[in-house]
Amino acid sequence: MKFVIIGGDAAGMSAASRAKRHQPDLDVTVLEKTADVSYSACGMPYNIADPDRSIEDLVVRRAEVFREKQGINLLTGMEATAIDPETRTVDTRDSESQTRQFEYDNLLIATGAAPIRPAVPGIDLPGVMVLKSLAHGRAIKHFIDQWDVKKTVIIGMGYIALEMCEALRERGIDVDMVKPRETFLPWMEDHMAEQVRTEVTSKGVGLYPGHAVEKIEKANGRLAVVCPDLTLEADLVLVAIGVAPASGLAAVAGLQTSVADAIAVDARQRTSVKNIFAAGDCADAFHVVTGQRTWIPLALRANRAGWAVADNVCGIDRRLAGVAGSAVFKVFDFQVARTGLNEAEAREAGLEPASVVIKSRSRAHAHPGASDIWVHMVGDRGSGRLLGVQMVGHDGVAHRLHAPAVALHAHMTVEQFSLSDLAYAPPFGPTWDPMLTAANQLLKKL
Amino acid sequence: MKFVIIGGDAAGMSAASRAKRHQPDLDVTVLEKTADVSYSACGMPYNIADPDRSIEDLVVRRAEVFREKQGINLLTGMEATAIDPETRTVDTRDSESQTRQFEYDNLLIATGAAPIRPAVPGIDLPGVMVLKSLAHGRAIKHFIDQWDVKKTVIIGMGYIALEMCEALRERGIDVDMVKPRETFLPWMEDHMAEQVRTEVTSKGVGLYPGHAVEKIEKANGRLAVVCPDLTLEADLVLVAIGVAPASGLAAVAGLQTSVADAIAVDARQRTSVKNIFAAGDCADAFHVVTGQRTWIPLALRANRAGWAVADNVCGIDRRLAGVAGSAVFKVFDFQVARTGLNEAEAREAGLEPASVVIKSRSRAHAHPGASDIWVHMVGDRGSGRLLGVQMVGHDGVAHRLHAPAVALHAHMTVEQFSLSDLAYAPPFGPTWDPMLTAANQLLKKL
Repeated sequence: MKFVIIGGDAAGMSAASRAKRHQPDLDVTVLEKTADVSYSACGMPYNIADPDRSIEDLVVRRAEVFREKQGINLLTGMEATAIDPETRTVDTRDSESQTRQFEYDNLLIATGAAPIRPAVPGIDLPGVMVLKSLAHGRAIKHFIDQWDVKKTVIIGMGYIALEMCEALRERGIDVDMVKPRETFLPWMEDHMAEQVRTEVTSKGVGLYPGHAVEKIEKANGRLAVVCPDLTLEADLVLVAIGVAPASGLAAVAGLQTSVADAIAVDARQRTSVKNIFAAGDCADAFHVVTGQRTWIPLALRANRAGWAVADNVCGIDRRLAGVAGSAVFKVFDFQVARTGLNEAEAREAGLEPASVVIKSRSRAHAHPGASDIWVHMVGDRGSGRLLGVQMVGHDGVAHRLHAPAVALHAHMTVEQFSLSDLAYAPPFGPTWDPMLTAANQLLKKL
Repeated sequence: MKFVIIGGDAAGMSAASRAKRHQPDLDVTVLEKTADVSYSACGMPYNIADPDRSIEDLVVRRAEVFREKQGINLLTGMEATAIDPETRTVDTRDSESQTRQFEYDNLLIATGAAPIRPAVPGIDLPGVMVLKSLAHGRAIKHFIDQWDVKKTVIIGMGYIALEMCEALRERGIDVDMVKPRETFLPWMEDHMAEQVRTEVTSKGVGLYPGHAVEKIEKANGRLAVVCPDLTLEADLVLVAIGVAPASGLAAVAGLQTSVADAIAVDARQRTSVKNIFAAGDCADAFHVVTGQRTWIPLALRANRAGWAVADNVCGIDRRLAGVAGSAVFKVFDFQVARTGLNEAEAREAGLEPASVVIKSRSRAHAHPGASDIWVHMVGDRGSGRLLGVQMVGHDGVAHRLHAPAVALHAHMTVEQFSLSDLAYAPPFGPTWDPMLTAANQLLKKL
């Protein structure tokens, strides 16, 4: 059986490796358009923060290992240009523009997502950069060293934008952040977003939400990001306004797409076309709270979906649970985390959300070293179900979030969650964990 | 309505406060035999560690506040000596041996647990101490200062013993620990217990499991803890071999008791006798995994059970979920946590456990500052259910444990848990959280 995989990143290489573990004699071919496979993309901001570390440290497994030790036919610099579901073939073009056709019995599309670049003049100027692939990370690091970057403007204020903001500040580089929308973190409860904003500005970062970028131009030997009422100069401009699923190839081949043009897949990661699977940032997923299709491109899901495809291709029936949209990031000394729906998302899904925000402490009464921790919890008035949790604090936020994520998978009510027997010791929290305090408060509103 | 509460610690004062919030005109009387109410008992080791902090810092709310601001008839130095369910009365004796009788409509027994003292000669010598009440903490702190304690022998190696070991080492006091059983942490998976043992001995602590104490005697102006083949000298001997429910009063009054002689209660915290509730360390609970009665005296449950009693007394029907036995403690730079059943407990409960131990990292590939983290996971071969989790590591163990605790409440299978959408970012864990790695490994054995 020929198993062809388009894309050699998290989903693609997870699928390839697992399929070969299941069936060592399986003919597995991976078509990867870049030179890099299997690296920790999420680690790039932290690597860029450290001038003494090589970006190559992020490579988890080198291409030769996949080829020689695992027997995977891994072809880098090989771009898929068309899929024909009728003839079960993939057309490709390599770095020297040579074309070649591959036949498949099962195909996995794992083309990931691509950074969105706004269509403004100057977006292609040297020094205007994005961060998605290892090549991008390499280029940014090289650019900072080569041009001795003193100042960066980041367009966007999402996870990656904020992680990169911290990374650049660690290197002593000044940072301004700009975006069109007025709200700093629109998905986050206002009071908590304000905590994060305060943290970021306290580190000397200029935050300019509510400013649409009109153009980027050269000015004074640097770059200028020009908005109607604001011009920000920089040596480097980082565009981090989000990513879009790289689903063009799939759409042209007639595969069904869904939310945000992601490739629609079922719980087995099968697309609408027989023998074609999709996984990773190019594919959608079902949300555990709403049961509806959603598109939340994150690393764990990509790995897990790759595994599921390998299982199903190899005859092991594997259906994945949905996603809860659990995400966490660090920005300076703050941990910011969310899982499930916020109030607006809950209303959109036709639910009747009620919510609370509580402030608690990261350690027990009178225990030294305690800091503030904020919990926002959303529940459904109709069913009493827990719908989502957001948390912000200096300590203990990231790992606490796992509990409500599991509760969402279990379709727990707020009351059931509030009765959970969570472990307590003074160095790690108050007797009533902040999440339980939030649940107890929320119960009064349901 | 007269609501009488015996015991003014976590369960008793939680019940009193909440009942008064529900019904400000309720007649609430608390009978507390000591002088202290509402303090962070679990914080005592950390307070003792710091010579500059007063033990009184641990008081969360002073008796006057309960009396004056909350209108609770709080009587300290008032020991309950008998309960008569027929006449609905409680007999008491105060610190001046005056007796008095209280009538109740509803009674809460919240007498807590008492430290176990082995019946060996010398157990009553000055300098042989226990730690349960604030008075004990006060006495230990005073003794250390007064006698300039240089060396302590701790009898026992449980949570409190290990927390106290760390506290004393922080004050520069040498510590030896001794107990009869050969196994260092008998409830913990061997390989992981070995990690904790290495951590403790690396701090210069002498560990002597497998030595039964025969007697304690005075020797060379100090104390000597004498075992058949070992004598350990000390200025202070701390007995920390566990606690037993203070259920004598209840048993004499004819209330049903269960596991470990704890007072048997239903999900509403009602005892076998009408209008008498029990809560806190003196009461049992149902285990969420086995559904059977168990006795796991911990602070969160005591608070929660106190609240539930207040609700039920005030006409709000409140049934508690069971306990998962979730516990965490810190010992030096290690976090040690558990929830649910270990293999032996699972077998005792008639289940067919399979388990794994995995070692993972606390941060992502190539992320600086990562440390080891061990996860032991137990599942049931028959049903596929998750039965329990133990974790050990320097970082991120305590809060991670909340997730499997919630999963146990939800009766999740190991597979369901393995498919949970947990948040990931490089500073907080690998893409596959250590708990997911354990679940994935355990799945292969089920």
